[in-house]
Amino acid sequence: MIDKPFLNKETEGTNKEMVLSKQEMLDFGYQIVDTIVEHFETQHLKAPVSVSTRKEMDSVFLEEAPENPMNAIEVLEFVKEKVLSETTNVAHPKFFSFVPSPSNFISAMSDSLATGFNIFSGGWSASAAASELEIVCINWLLQLFNFPVKRGGGIFTSGGSMANLTALVTARREKLGENFENGTIYMSDQTHSSNIKAIRIIGLKKEQVRIIPTDLEFKMSLNKLRNAIAKDKLMGLKPFCIIANAGTTNTGSVDNLFEISKICKAEKIWLHVDAAYGGGAILSTKGALALKGIEKANSITIDPHKWFYQPYEIGCLLVRNHKWLSNTFTEKPEYLKDIEGNQSEINFYDYGIQLTRRFRALKFYMSIKTFGLKAFREAVTYNIELAEKTEALIRKSKDWEIVSPANLAIINFRYNPVDTDYKEDELDRINQAISQRISNQKSAMLVTTVLQNQIVLRMCLINPRTTINSIKETLKLCQTFAIEIAKIS
Amino acid sequence: MIDKPFLNKETEGTNKEMVLSKQEMLDFGYQIVDTIVEHFETQHLKAPVSVSTRKEMDSVFLEEAPENPMNAIEVLEFVKEKVLSETTNVAHPKFFSFVPSPSNFISAMSDSLATGFNIFSGGWSASAAASELEIVCINWLLQLFNFPVKRGGGIFTSGGSMANLTALVTARREKLGENFENGTIYMSDQTHSSNIKAIRIIGLKKEQVRIIPTDLEFKMSLNKLRNAIAKDKLMGLKPFCIIANAGTTNTGSVDNLFEISKICKAEKIWLHVDAAYGGGAILSTKGALALKGIEKANSITIDPHKWFYQPYEIGCLLVRNHKWLSNTFTEKPEYLKDIEGNQSEINFYDYGIQLTRRFRALKFYMSIKTFGLKAFREAVTYNIELAEKTEALIRKSKDWEIVSPANLAIINFRYNPVDTDYKEDELDRINQAISQRISNQKSAMLVTTVLQNQIVLRMCLINPRTTINSIKETLKLCQTFAIEIAKIS
Ligand SMILES: Cc1ncc(COP(=O)(O)O)c(C=O)c1O
Ligand SMILES: Cc1ncc(COP(=O)(O)O)c(C=O)c1O
Repeated sequence: MIDKPFLNKETEGTNKEMVLSKQEMLDFGYQIVDTIVEHFETQHLKAPVSVSTRKEMDSVFLEEAPENPMNAIEVLEFVKEKVLSETTNVAHPKFFSFVPSPSNFISAMSDSLATGFNIFSGGWSASAAASELEIVCINWLLQLFNFPVKRGGGIFTSGGSMANLTALVTARREKLGENFENGTIYMSDQTHSSNIKAIRIIGLKKEQVRIIPTDLEFKMSLNKLRNAIAKDKLMGLKPFCIIANAGTTNTGSVDNLFEISKICKAEKIWLHVDAAYGGGAILSTKGALALKGIEKANSITIDPHKWFYQPYEIGCLLVRNHKWLSNTFTEKPEYLKDIEGNQSEINFYDYGIQLTRRFRALKFYMSIKTFGLKAFREAVTYNIELAEKTEALIRKSKDWEIVSPANLAIINFRYNPVDTDYKEDELDRINQAISQRISNQKSAMLVTTVLQNQIVLRMCLINPRTTINSIKETLKLCQTFAIEIAKIS
Repeated sequence: MIDKPFLNKETEGTNKEMVLSKQEMLDFGYQIVDTIVEHFETQHLKAPVSVSTRKEMDSVFLEEAPENPMNAIEVLEFVKEKVLSETTNVAHPKFFSFVPSPSNFISAMSDSLATGFNIFSGGWSASAAASELEIVCINWLLQLFNFPVKRGGGIFTSGGSMANLTALVTARREKLGENFENGTIYMSDQTHSSNIKAIRIIGLKKEQVRIIPTDLEFKMSLNKLRNAIAKDKLMGLKPFCIIANAGTTNTGSVDNLFEISKICKAEKIWLHVDAAYGGGAILSTKGALALKGIEKANSITIDPHKWFYQPYEIGCLLVRNHKWLSNTFTEKPEYLKDIEGNQSEINFYDYGIQLTRRFRALKFYMSIKTFGLKAFREAVTYNIELAEKTEALIRKSKDWEIVSPANLAIINFRYNPVDTDYKEDELDRINQAISQRISNQKSAMLVTTVLQNQIVLRMCLINPRTTINSIKETLKLCQTFAIEIAKIS
């Protein structure tokens, strides 16, 4: 008995409060699956948007923590009716705003497996296979981005915000060490706010941050960048990091990565590329062309829960040299550091901020194994071409103007009829009102952004379930609303 | 057609690469459920530990990213056989080490729902119900910890590391603003390493950190703490934060929260309590008594994926005043303008580091609704008493010594027979070897830690499925190994 005690059934004497019978588990589990499958089958029939006030929600959900149990299936029914119906559907084919997350069924259910087995993905010894799959998936990404696979490395994070934070901590440590008061960091006015948040978190001051203006295509001005760096050096400051965009959230624009990488090389500056949004484009020929130069970066943020069709949460940071991560995040004595590394048994808690980590790699791995990369490539190509078709459609209309053309599946446009002479603020008001009516009508999620001081409508078309027809329908609706609004204004 | 375009079935013209039929989805989903249910039914029969080298894992998993698809069920079978078998089982009744994560089935499957519906839990307008449930669950926790519910607030994070980081960024900002070079921070030598990591991330230097020694019960020495603060003030430094422990990872010790809170009040210092491990104890009468004073904190880290029986990942930060979080983390980029809510409609991306966030609250909510808080209270009480029984058992033996008594379900002991005169380093070697043999034998996960320079065996007993019998079996095994090892040494 003593040599194999783990073969005894551990049922006697345990606390049984939270134990369900096998049948109860199966019933509950199958219902969950049925609910998810039904959602995948019908999500295009639901409204993409849901709007409720705090007061409405409070009246449904506010209660003391219940002391007593309730039937699991009843809880589930309540959640289906009251919770799942009150959420905006970021995978809806007419969810055009922010960055949609189209997701896929295989990843969603594979992720359940990771949760069901509650796999700790922090250290090698806790879960060799989980660590290995993370290494394998990171290798796939290193290869896709033309990063050195042997020397390079990376880590899956909760999302782009955490990947950017992880990158900036690493850049600061590698370039400045503990005394970073003189360091200066550069990014364009189109850079995602998560970078600014990260900069605040790591303790840089406003005076250390340079926001570089963008040109008419929303790319960082190289001349202004060079000026800023030169001036800072003259002032005795230490330029240590440039954050370049590979797919801005607003317009999908890609900064001139080649030229910026040359500046970085000459000035010994860390090049971080935020490709949280645009990274997925690497999968298509056109996208890869647009991202050319990204392979020169020191670090790249990509967000598989965006354009790699993964459900939340999975972000990723790639680095050219895995030691940068372990040097920054390991608490280990120096003499142990050498034997670690990309070739050995990686403890991912030594590569980033989290200690306890979910097994995020599993869904990524299982979806790529199941569908094959080719399916991902085709979907991304489809998305890029869909935006191009949308651009062509809009260009044909005399009422609409392209403010930023199709870039990595993002397009910005506004109502601005050729034969009228609206003032800028009138146009702003009309376009804002169009978006508002679309929202109210709930058939599509189409919000505005501000580009070069103009309020414009923005479509982010990374959902492979979005058809050109659904775009046409939405544009028609925009047109109808525009004319109605124009009449009364 | 135009007034209800979302009623059209969006099937024509989409990219279909990643689309499965309803039947394929159901088949795959049910198999996932079957696999998880089987795991819950049989996990106590499996080995808690799994050990593999990188080389072994490489030989199984290393491959190029596949271009072509593979049958989903085949992928699943491969993962079941090769991945799920090669992971340490942190919910096993004999997984005694680190901090186990016992989890529960309802939470595991509820989490799948959040993933299946891919709910964005960042902003109110994206998911009113998701934000509301997070508010509701945070309220429950505020109440449990005697924090003000109206003024207080909090956020779910990926875990304790992120909650501590979020707390320290907030403390730094509230107490020091942008110029934090003179700030000093205090914690005991038992404080969890995630706090040190967070301190590095936020840019404090080694010279700003004071590690305060602990007394014989592993609690921060109040005298040494007072000395350190007084000295720093004399040097013109600015003490701004004390990190107190409510359940250290090593011994479950709780610092003297009342006295520390008085110091904090007098000196206007932020009190952060790291209760990532121990927080769950609040659910039991005994535990709540041990945590007395925690309600005086400015912020508390708790980790529901530990002793609230949730699967990974869910951590939590509570604050006495929710504005501390929004003041620290709010950013308003242009494209988020449309979705700003009124004061009461919380955008959780303004409360912490992540922008995109999973719907972590759902599993917490559904498990508490289903089982009732009472079940949680009984399970935690069971755990605390199990450790006390274990202590009583060990105290009865003349061969074993209690190094740290049962504290919040953690206990440390070592082989040290009364009638022998082993030197300290011999005892260290023997106890290390006992742990090693247990690991090799794979029947239990029982590793050592170092307390007051002694190598000791440590048990963390927060699994409600752990029986006193399984502890007895493990202790017997320890005894057998101890005698074998003692003989040959
Ligand atoms: C360019 C860019 N960077 C970073 C982020 C932040 O990523 P996440 O929302 O996953 O934190 C986003 C999100 O939209 C983004 O578009
Ligand atoms: C006291 C304490 N704080 C913080 C942490 C870190 O929590 P996590 O592993 O969830 O990041 C732990 C983990 O064991 C802990 O015990």
